[in-house]
Amino acid sequence: MKYILDAIIENNLGFELLQGTWGLEKENLRVDDKGNLALTSHPENLGDKISHPYITTDFSESQIEIITPPSKSIDDAYNMLVNLNDIVTENIHDNEFLWPSSMPSIIPTHDKIPIANYGTSPKAIEKMEYREYIAEKYGKHKQLICGIHYNFSFNSDFLEKLHKTCYSEMSFYDFKNSIYLTVSRNLLKHQWLLTYLLGANVATHSSYKHCCDKHREDRNEDCIFKDACSYRNSICGYRNKEDFRVSFDSLREYIDDLNKLISEGFLKGVKEYYSPVRIKNSKDDNSLTAIEHDGIEYIELRMIDLNPLSQTGIFREDLYLVHLIILASLLKPCSSYNQQDQAEAIENQNIVSFTGHKLPENLREEGVTFFNKLNELLDKLLVNNDKYKQIINAAIEKLKNSSRLYSQRVYQDVYKDGYINYHLSIAKQNKKNILSSSFSLKGYEDLELSTQILIKEALLLGLKVEILDIKENFISIKKGDKIEYIKQATKTSLDSYSTALVMENKAITKKVLLENSISVPPGDIFTNKQDALNSYFRFKDKKIVIKPNNTNFGIGITILDSGFSLDEFTKGLDLAFENDGTVLIELFFKGDEYRFTIIGGKVAGILRRVPANVIGDGKLSISQLVENKNRNPLRGKGYKKPLEIIKLGPEEIFYLKMRGKTEDYIPKEGETVYLRENSNISTGGDSIDFTDLIDSSYKIEAERAAKAVGANITGVDMMIQDINTKRSDENSTIIELNFNPAIHIHCYPFKGENRRLGLKVLKALGF
Amino acid sequence: MKYILDAIIENNLGFELLQGTWGLEKENLRVDDKGNLALTSHPENLGDKISHPYITTDFSESQIEIITPPSKSIDDAYNMLVNLNDIVTENIHDNEFLWPSSMPSIIPTHDKIPIANYGTSPKAIEKMEYREYIAEKYGKHKQLICGIHYNFSFNSDFLEKLHKTCYSEMSFYDFKNSIYLTVSRNLLKHQWLLTYLLGANVATHSSYKHCCDKHREDRNEDCIFKDACSYRNSICGYRNKEDFRVSFDSLREYIDDLNKLISEGFLKGVKEYYSPVRIKNSKDDNSLTAIEHDGIEYIELRMIDLNPLSQTGIFREDLYLVHLIILASLLKPCSSYNQQDQAEAIENQNIVSFTGHKLPENLREEGVTFFNKLNELLDKLLVNNDKYKQIINAAIEKLKNSSRLYSQRVYQDVYKDGYINYHLSIAKQNKKNILSSSFSLKGYEDLELSTQILIKEALLLGLKVEILDIKENFISIKKGDKIEYIKQATKTSLDSYSTALVMENKAITKKVLLENSISVPPGDIFTNKQDALNSYFRFKDKKIVIKPNNTNFGIGITILDSGFSLDEFTKGLDLAFENDGTVLIELFFKGDEYRFTIIGGKVAGILRRVPANVIGDGKLSISQLVENKNRNPLRGKGYKKPLEIIKLGPEEIFYLKMRGKTEDYIPKEGETVYLRENSNISTGGDSIDFTDLIDSSYKIEAERAAKAVGANITGVDMMIQDINTKRSDENSTIIELNFNPAIHIHCYPFKGENRRLGLKVLKALGF
Repeated sequence: MKYILDAIIENNLGFELLQGTWGLEKENLRVDDKGNLALTSHPENLGDKISHPYITTDFSESQIEIITPPSKSIDDAYNMLVNLNDIVTENIHDNEFLWPSSMPSIIPTHDKIPIANYGTSPKAIEKMEYREYIAEKYGKHKQLICGIHYNFSFNSDFLEKLHKTCYSEMSFYDFKNSIYLTVSRNLLKHQWLLTYLLGANVATHSSYKHCCDKHREDRNEDCIFKDACSYRNSICGYRNKEDFRVSFDSLREYIDDLNKLISEGFLKGVKEYYSPVRIKNSKDDNSLTAIEHDGIEYIELRMIDLNPLSQTGIFREDLYLVHLIILASLLKPCSSYNQQDQAEAIENQNIVSFTGHKLPENLREEGVTFFNKLNELLDKLLVNNDKYKQIINAAIEKLKNSSRLYSQRVYQDVYKDGYINYHLSIAKQNKKNILSSSFSLKGYEDLELSTQILIKEALLLGLKVEILDIKENFISIKKGDKIEYIKQATKTSLDSYSTALVMENKAITKKVLLENSISVPPGDIFTNKQDALNSYFRFKDKKIVIKPNNTNFGIGITILDSGFSLDEFTKGLDLAFENDGTVLIELFFKGDEYRFTIIGGKVAGILRRVPANVIGDGKLSISQLVENKNRNPLRGKGYKKPLEIIKLGPEEIFYLKMRGKTEDYIPKEGETVYLRENSNISTGGDSIDFTDLIDSSYKIEAERAAKAVGANITGVDMMIQDINTKRSDENSTIIELNFNPAIHIHCYPFKGENRRLGLKVLKALGF
Repeated sequence: MKYILDAIIENNLGFELLQGTWGLEKENLRVDDKGNLALTSHPENLGDKISHPYITTDFSESQIEIITPPSKSIDDAYNMLVNLNDIVTENIHDNEFLWPSSMPSIIPTHDKIPIANYGTSPKAIEKMEYREYIAEKYGKHKQLICGIHYNFSFNSDFLEKLHKTCYSEMSFYDFKNSIYLTVSRNLLKHQWLLTYLLGANVATHSSYKHCCDKHREDRNEDCIFKDACSYRNSICGYRNKEDFRVSFDSLREYIDDLNKLISEGFLKGVKEYYSPVRIKNSKDDNSLTAIEHDGIEYIELRMIDLNPLSQTGIFREDLYLVHLIILASLLKPCSSYNQQDQAEAIENQNIVSFTGHKLPENLREEGVTFFNKLNELLDKLLVNNDKYKQIINAAIEKLKNSSRLYSQRVYQDVYKDGYINYHLSIAKQNKKNILSSSFSLKGYEDLELSTQILIKEALLLGLKVEILDIKENFISIKKGDKIEYIKQATKTSLDSYSTALVMENKAITKKVLLENSISVPPGDIFTNKQDALNSYFRFKDKKIVIKPNNTNFGIGITILDSGFSLDEFTKGLDLAFENDGTVLIELFFKGDEYRFTIIGGKVAGILRRVPANVIGDGKLSISQLVENKNRNPLRGKGYKKPLEIIKLGPEEIFYLKMRGKTEDYIPKEGETVYLRENSNISTGGDSIDFTDLIDSSYKIEAERAAKAVGANITGVDMMIQDINTKRSDENSTIIELNFNPAIHIHCYPFKGENRRLGLKVLKALGF
């Protein structure tokens, strides 16, 4: 595997080299509000832990494990981790938190720690028996140590092209194994470097029974390790009983060595081999038989600590850093990893874990050289590599100055606040942050909120989500062989193309509703102004609405009070015809407007929108009340949040003035002061859930309207005079059907509960 | 029923008064190219004459009858008549024509005239027996007389409001009957006026056995009636044996009078009562029992002649004129129609029919007064009535000057050319005109051609078509309870909304095709320029296409030859990213592009587009050849015709110059000279049908691609290296799927046959 760098450069494979597939795993202990290990069951909301692909438990019932699906980019993998972490946090028991350190919280005695309970299936029993075995062998306390695993495979195009052009003398099987083994050897040699840069635990609580004596400093209830980078990666951390010798020179030797350890009883199986780098195969629980048959498919790095400084447990840049170290490990000239190399690597790892802050000069130099060379390589491979160079340079800075290390910052705070207090306050703050923005899908805030909500519900159900086009809010959702394409959360296969097009057109929708005896506002549709003008005598003694056919957001609409003049009528028609060639004239219907959102043909939520307003407390002025109301984390700007910030601009001031008030007026307790005429959410209007408050006769009518146009998903806008009276054609009318109704308004209303419309869409789609 | 005008004005019902429902019936004899009555069967292409709602036969097998569906406007009814007339003309036997006069062509002896053959069902036998009866009673020659029937009902809203506000003292049943009887009485009194204005036959051929002696002038083979308006409406025309007295004073009297005539054996049924005005009911073959039960639902005017001056048999304005005369008949003070009134009306009718060109002064004055009053009325009822007034004023002119009458113009030409020659040459010219524009749906030329074709196919199948939004090409098609909404001919319920959206997005389509192992051009998709730039080394040695994701018509696309510079690459990316946030880079695939249009999951047509070109004959110059090619009636401007006019502008001249030619160059016989690089139809490109010429392996692949995205209707664009070689992933690739493929390109290609894609869409929809 010589000259691999030259081969890549000569064949212009730099672009493919940078691609790959990423998967992350992360464990966290659940703790109570005092920092004690939670002894409750895995939260039901999170689904079945034995079958859920993303959310399960590790060793203990209280040890939640998040597994991201394979992602084609680091950003996607990271975003997935963030969001699964959010979902878990939102769904754990009320008074519980995710412990943000790799080393455990306050833990009970051995017998009280619950091993994960998977049920009674053969598979479950096998899992639980294995856990009993390792609990016995390593102790339950040690098995509570948590971390992050980083799985990576090279782009298959890259491997195939490189094989074809430069290494066709060997089989693709041998070539691929050789690539991953080269990377693994170099990574094993440089495990100290990763531990130095990413290590983030420097203490344990005294309830942890395996506290090392070496380098230890006791302080209150804590054991602190002053110069450490990672207690977890140290000789006292999560390791096998001995440093087994396993060769990475060839797959044959690797398999033979491991089989020997297993047959001699040192290990129960390959999964008990706690190497910081594992070579893996995706089939059959990663058995040695499978890896021998198909060859190596990816590598797993297991030495990464939970980083309490990041809400997610790891920073995005560190995922890039690990990737770069993997690439450098491929591109370095082929190196050995013999018994002596192994001993040296472990020794370096031990030194860095416990005393990394006093990094030996030879390691510092080796590290800086490693990254400098990487910088040079990138110049040869890529046109644009600023992003990568920034990350490399930051790593070099950390090598030169250990005060920049995460472990140093954690040490200082643990020393100051105590191990439990420090981590517990982070855990609580993390949960608070996550709950306050639970409506959003992190990293995808440019998606419409409705799509964000749908994706979160899909992840919670364990479905496979792919964002096909972020700007178009276009995603696919898969389970097994079933795949659904969804745009803007409610444009789905549940509706036919023609049904959507019917709803897009107000005039056609009205025709169809009328033909199905659904009450719509009386009126007429005109395609030329002359004919429309001739209806003057017909309408002049009524209050009417003139509106263009296809425009939205109230553009081009005129409302005329009864007795309007021909001149007013003409002007209204002119305005409407400017916006569309087809114009509707409708009798104005007095009442309140309600949105009935239909999913799968059934009413899934009912909402009323009221104009921007404040309610007095007898003390605060209008402007103070507005300020208070805007503190609601659900309010933001530009549709990124469920509600919009209320403005107190010239329009609102004018509106108040017309009603004899100023912004300094102090409303009486309970007095509602409206700030605008229109009720749009976009101008600070409130959404108020009425799902359980409206007589069922209205729901039936809304569902009938949906059925009339053949819609499974639609937003029915209905004018209602009194929600407590039974519906009739006289006291209600349907003014619009919306083919792409927003679902977020029903999930995060100003008042009322989350109606989980995302979940309802998924259920309607058959998931 | 007094003061009805005041009631309408007081209640602002002028707008509703003008509305209504219209239906037209028209008969024509089929004739051969010499003007002989055709003795062939009803054309098979026109469907089953006993069940087709629009196209059937009347008395004779050679007497085609067109029935328009009920229409909500005169324009719609007229357009329907025009198009059904086109459809009939296009589908009659090759050497046959529609005889354009009410009076017959050259007809054989009585025994040779074929009575319509409806088959052997009980209903068919009943129809045929009735025809035998009237053949016997009136003679087959007389039953060959053709005409136009005008059916009209008032807007139901109008009737209900008027009843409610002013006439609620009587039942709605009585009120409605009273309205229609008032109109009928006045129309019967003014039948002479309609005959005067619309009469259009003044001669018969000598083979017609019932030629009147009165006013007759023999000339060669013709009997000519110099001052006549309408021979058909004369005492020798299509009349009952006697002028039966039937009262129109009340429905009761009307029914009693008719029942008496029937029971006394004068008439076989109500349908044998050949009154110029009939009151009708839509149920049960218009029986007297049904009309007694439900009341009068509409009126039928039967005195309108086929007008040879109009290709359709009647002019659009004349439909408006009849409507205005109906309205005037409603608004006139309530009048009687007693025995004396009836005698007088028939006398006036007889005078006008035979000698209308010498119109008695009292009638002229009565007519002018009638219309002047109508003009006054309209001012009170409508804001804008220019359209109506023009028509009224033209009628007044005709009353004042009989030389403006249709009958006068027909007389002059028949006198000059002979009865048969004159009408036969019109018949031939009509057919020629209709065939040369058979791709279009008349009156709806603003619709896309694909929609026009679809509607024509639907009418031919006897389906009910409604144009819901002309600007959006949105229609509905009904049969019985089944209704389908269709936009732009191929946006239907056959595809789900999400399937259409997948196809709308090139990048997503490509992903889906790839996942289904369909060959697409290799390449990558980028959502930011930085990442795209990094692929430079990957692509630089290949010929590539850079294209924005969602734009069409080649906008933002760059093609780079292999070995392109980073600068060229950057410029290409800039251009693409200006048009869309997502950009595709693909390897260029060498081959010819074919469009496979899939309908109902199956290939319905295959087309290749070639750039604008001419083929030499060794004599004409390029510019002369272009001129010749543009004479093809399929070529037009602005997508209104199947092909576009070829231009010879600066671009084409430049293109020729680059190849060493000018527009004066005379290509050799068979030499093809291309005028442009691009093959778009919009720049004069030719569409060439390949449906039967391409190896089936390509069709299978196109159908697989459609299936992959779940599409029933789509246009698959495939690059193919050699259509005679079996398909492989190396010799072909799919570059695009189109969610709204045009169907007209397969129906009226430059070369090749009409693949009837409109019919295929309808069949796929289950019609």
